[in-house]
Amino acid sequence: MTKLGLIGVGYWGPNIARVLNQSTQCEFSACSDLDEGKLEKILRQYPSVRGFTNANEMLESDIDAVVIATGISTHYELARTALRRGKHVMVEKPIADTSAKAQDLVAEAAKARRLLMTGHTFVYSPPVIKVKELLDSGELGDIFFLSFSRVNLGLYQKDVDVVWDLAVHDISILLYWLGEAPIHAYSFGRACIQQAKNDVAFLWFQFRRGPVASCEVSWISPQKMRRICIVGSKRMVVYDDTDPSEKLKIYDRGVMLRPPATFGEFQLTYRMGDVVSPNLASTEPLLNEVEHFVRCIQTGTTPRTDGKFGLDVVRAIEMAISNRWRPAELITAA
Amino acid sequence: MTKLGLIGVGYWGPNIARVLNQSTQCEFSACSDLDEGKLEKILRQYPSVRGFTNANEMLESDIDAVVIATGISTHYELARTALRRGKHVMVEKPIADTSAKAQDLVAEAAKARRLLMTGHTFVYSPPVIKVKELLDSGELGDIFFLSFSRVNLGLYQKDVDVVWDLAVHDISILLYWLGEAPIHAYSFGRACIQQAKNDVAFLWFQFRRGPVASCEVSWISPQKMRRICIVGSKRMVVYDDTDPSEKLKIYDRGVMLRPPATFGEFQLTYRMGDVVSPNLASTEPLLNEVEHFVRCIQTGTTPRTDGKFGLDVVRAIEMAISNRWRPAELITAA
Amino acid sequence: MTKLGLIGVGYWGPNIARVLNQSTQCEFSACSDLDEGKLEKILRQYPSVRGFTNANEMLESDIDAVVIATGISTHYELARTALRRGKHVMVEKPIADTSAKAQDLVAEAAKARRLLMTGHTFVYSPPVIKVKELLDSGELGDIFFLSFSRVNLGLYQKDVDVVWDLAVHDISILLYWLGEAPIHAYSFGRACIQQAKNDVAFLWFQFRRGPVASCEVSWISPQKMRRICIVGSKRMVVYDDTDPSEKLKIYDRGVMLRPPATFGEFQLTYRMGDVVSPNLASTEPLLNEVEHFVRCIQTGTTPRTDGKFGLDVVRAIEMAISNRWRPAELITAA
Amino acid sequence: MTKLGLIGVGYWGPNIARVLNQSTQCEFSACSDLDEGKLEKILRQYPSVRGFTNANEMLESDIDAVVIATGISTHYELARTALRRGKHVMVEKPIADTSAKAQDLVAEAAKARRLLMTGHTFVYSPPVIKVKELLDSGELGDIFFLSFSRVNLGLYQKDVDVVWDLAVHDISILLYWLGEAPIHAYSFGRACIQQAKNDVAFLWFQFRRGPVASCEVSWISPQKMRRICIVGSKRMVVYDDTDPSEKLKIYDRGVMLRPPATFGEFQLTYRMGDVVSPNLASTEPLLNEVEHFVRCIQTGTTPRTDGKFGLDVVRAIEMAISNRWRPAELITAA
Repeated sequence: MTKLGLIGVGYWGPNIARVLNQSTQCEFSACSDLDEGKLEKILRQYPSVRGFTNANEMLESDIDAVVIATGISTHYELARTALRRGKHVMVEKPIADTSAKAQDLVAEAAKARRLLMTGHTFVYSPPVIKVKELLDSGELGDIFFLSFSRVNLGLYQKDVDVVWDLAVHDISILLYWLGEAPIHAYSFGRACIQQAKNDVAFLWFQFRRGPVASCEVSWISPQKMRRICIVGSKRMVVYDDTDPSEKLKIYDRGVMLRPPATFGEFQLTYRMGDVVSPNLASTEPLLNEVEHFVRCIQTGTTPRTDGKFGLDVVRAIEMAISNRWRPAELITAA
Repeated sequence: MTKLGLIGVGYWGPNIARVLNQSTQCEFSACSDLDEGKLEKILRQYPSVRGFTNANEMLESDIDAVVIATGISTHYELARTALRRGKHVMVEKPIADTSAKAQDLVAEAAKARRLLMTGHTFVYSPPVIKVKELLDSGELGDIFFLSFSRVNLGLYQKDVDVVWDLAVHDISILLYWLGEAPIHAYSFGRACIQQAKNDVAFLWFQFRRGPVASCEVSWISPQKMRRICIVGSKRMVVYDDTDPSEKLKIYDRGVMLRPPATFGEFQLTYRMGDVVSPNLASTEPLLNEVEHFVRCIQTGTTPRTDGKFGLDVVRAIEMAISNRWRPAELITAA
Repeated sequence: MTKLGLIGVGYWGPNIARVLNQSTQCEFSACSDLDEGKLEKILRQYPSVRGFTNANEMLESDIDAVVIATGISTHYELARTALRRGKHVMVEKPIADTSAKAQDLVAEAAKARRLLMTGHTFVYSPPVIKVKELLDSGELGDIFFLSFSRVNLGLYQKDVDVVWDLAVHDISILLYWLGEAPIHAYSFGRACIQQAKNDVAFLWFQFRRGPVASCEVSWISPQKMRRICIVGSKRMVVYDDTDPSEKLKIYDRGVMLRPPATFGEFQLTYRMGDVVSPNLASTEPLLNEVEHFVRCIQTGTTPRTDGKFGLDVVRAIEMAISNRWRPAELITAA
Repeated sequence: MTKLGLIGVGYWGPNIARVLNQSTQCEFSACSDLDEGKLEKILRQYPSVRGFTNANEMLESDIDAVVIATGISTHYELARTALRRGKHVMVEKPIADTSAKAQDLVAEAAKARRLLMTGHTFVYSPPVIKVKELLDSGELGDIFFLSFSRVNLGLYQKDVDVVWDLAVHDISILLYWLGEAPIHAYSFGRACIQQAKNDVAFLWFQFRRGPVASCEVSWISPQKMRRICIVGSKRMVVYDDTDPSEKLKIYDRGVMLRPPATFGEFQLTYRMGDVVSPNLASTEPLLNEVEHFVRCIQTGTTPRTDGKFGLDVVRAIEMAISNRWRPAELITAA
């Protein structure tokens, strides 16, 4: 059975430990963390796991693959070392803090002939998968636009701003759904509480085939929102992740332009059909993700969120941040 | 008593007729429309009103003031004529279809020493007024950002796109609340159904004192949203106009940065207090607006949404539309 | 065309006047009210209608049918007179203030060979009709129970208590859906604000074929609720009349008892399918109702809510009120 | 430090184990379960705890107190034994399956001079405590009525019906808030899926000082509801436990009867004030409860939900079930 090691059991790592232990597809074999206390706690819960305070030592053991759940700034070094040691690697999102590093990891994985996957968990969640099916089946028609809101109060991150922390989720969902990277990206934001670190931001994306997308992310909004609206020419979808019972709603609604007949001008008609909230699988996204990683290792398949996918997400973030509002270049009020 | 005439009883005009008749502050004296059928219907309901199929004729009668509720493209000519005939004028929003025309109307009103008001009805609605009070009292603290969503399915307009139709409301609210015009404005949108006429758009605004704002407007979204979120340093407010019972919620919440003490680094603390949904007056915004117009005429006061205010709204729209996403100028994906 | 007269244009009557005028199936021919001011207002809006301050005089005119929208206590006398004058009669709900009088009206109508209908408007509303279709098609399976909540703050009625004012709606819906009158009915309530007039009440009903129902009605609850839950063996429905966009939700959910196999005991399994919110016709219930009345007159069909139906509703109310909580007869705490 | 033992780590017990371990007020010292596998799992998580497969053996050890989280039918025997061994006892709700047994436990505790507490967890939850404060402070005025809805789909219990499973929570809350037991109780229900075991039930309660209460409980409803509405003469409260952010809403609303002045009859006026959703402590009810138990042991105080309280809850259930709908005794439809 595929033996997995885990690097980092701070904030998110313990959840990965839990699903590694829960899965019947792999063996949770080793675990490392610089913090002995955190490591101890994990080892007590999973007595058969070997513990390391040095990740490099663990990477020299007989594990087949490794999951990296450390701070973003350490992703690149750890993933590169693991690939060079011949391990398959799953790195938490974002894959790296620059696209250059992400690009380099993709090259390293190719050279090492090892699998590189990015832990974009939302791509493995039942509602996101369901929407992907609707998109691929053509049921939604052509996609006109998507609107994302991911806001709440609190949980400021230390090392990154709100775009790297929250928009990364929406961008991964967007790229998975549309199957392409944006050709243009733009952003606008404000650092309200801390100097030089945006806690609210708005992003816009343009895709080659037509769709546009808007994304609002904030750590400083009074109501929690986790809402995505997808508008297609045939159907529309609202995915509200805060709704405990009806996360997805599919609207059989639309507007159609009828060619001019006797009337001499184009006519708009509105179509109002049923709303369907499909029953969704209750499997945990993180378990799906880890088992997808293991299955790809076992079958030699390319993961849904491989290194290239992780790179595209980082590129989209960088593009949006580069195209930040620069007033001087714009036409301003007289 | 101040005698009022009404030009245009098509889509919105009948509502103005109703409140002109209802108000005890003025006399609904005359009414004109090119369409005799529509005019007839109004005259039957309000038998004491004189009817005209020619607006110019009505403007020569003894009315003191006129409300113009015709198509946008005719606002300028009618308002100018009315001002030149010495009538006080209230024009429906937007005041004109270009800022040059709006500017001209402001000048005409000054020359004629007549009152010019723009019918930005939301500025006269109880929740919007309540938020203005909170802002002016300092209860919300410094304003960090505002986020507007005004979307639904349908009600495409013939003569204008979605920015002129819907964003005009949000911009009027924004200018009223902040008491200043934006220094920068930007927009991004798509014409999904009709050629060259956006039915979904996103706008961003920057204000001199710091606040930023985002505004999403759409005619092609499955769920109706009429939601504004205002985030201040002391309090936050959500105004949801689709909520029949609790339109406003005031959140005593925030994030604070504590200077470094013994810890060596800045500390973030979250404040979580009560949520209050204030009871709001149930007066009709349109009646408030019309009576405000009449009171301003009677007392010589400048209306809250005078010609200059209407001009600022048109300028903000024009600025956002000019600064439309122009991909060639932007850094794009490699 | 069938000529209709209307008696009573106080609180509810003007709405009936509006739809009588709007309908192309009948002629709104005459109108009466004791209050000359109210009558005047209606006559000005509908100039072709003849006005009467004496209902009996109107009943002697050439109208074919009459709608009675007066206070409950006057229903009986007016309806009886109208039937005796050979008019078809639609009486507002409840048909009379006692079942004896209701019974008598049914007999009068039979004797006069005239149509007698009760104005249970909800029975003509699109969501209620849609549920009836689901019930009749067998899609919901056997009905286990129904739970009604009709509560809000205010609108105390002068002449009746909360059961006669609000529960009358739920009972009409219940009888229409189940197609039978309850065999047992019970009630429990309290007069909170006024002496001897319940402003909150709970009712229970038992039906011969199995279903049970509970109904909560109140004039003194902080949140408005207009909610009905229908639980069937195959599907469940929630009808929330306060939801502007998804009034009906059909749940493909259930619990099933599997016979004991190897396990030795009965197994419960839960079925969780999709939720569908059907698109509903947007026709106005009151217009549907009035046109149903006219169509029944023209075709000689029995109305859905005929006199007998109105009588059954009154009987159910009387039964529930008679079986009021009487502590002395019950087993009480030691 | 007070040493605690836990009997039963099946469904609910592991949660108690967690808070016993988490609390700094007591020592989680011993644990017993008939099922070795379940016991093992707990002992691995809490290595310092001694394990027993025989509860009686554990009761002979040096623990000071015991928490009983076994099936309802075993509560009585286990609690009696524990009291006789001189242990303080906290029993999960309901304290016993008959009031006779509950009464006996109260007597045993008195004889043994040991503390007996019932685990009515809701009584220790922040929203329920907040409402109790509002009630005791007089802020709500006189209580007119309370309406409870506790319904959802699934989680059928093996040993008890829906009244013993779900209504027990509402009754504990009701008795805590009002500070008295009901003088009358009545119930109505139906066994939809299984023979002779109600899965939906409605209960009514009458209290000596005036308040009435209604309670709907169901295992077979499509939407989850955890809603309590409290109507007082001065203020009204809605407690919706499914709302993640605003569980409590306090309505400054009411109806008042003004004595007749010049008008000759009583006038009703409606008061519509603000709605306040107080920020609530985020402490876990179960931890509160366990620490309350420990504190009462240490200080000799009577617990809020002592044996007598648990007995009153069982009596109220028994009274409601005895006064079940018995059609033959009631006036029925002709």
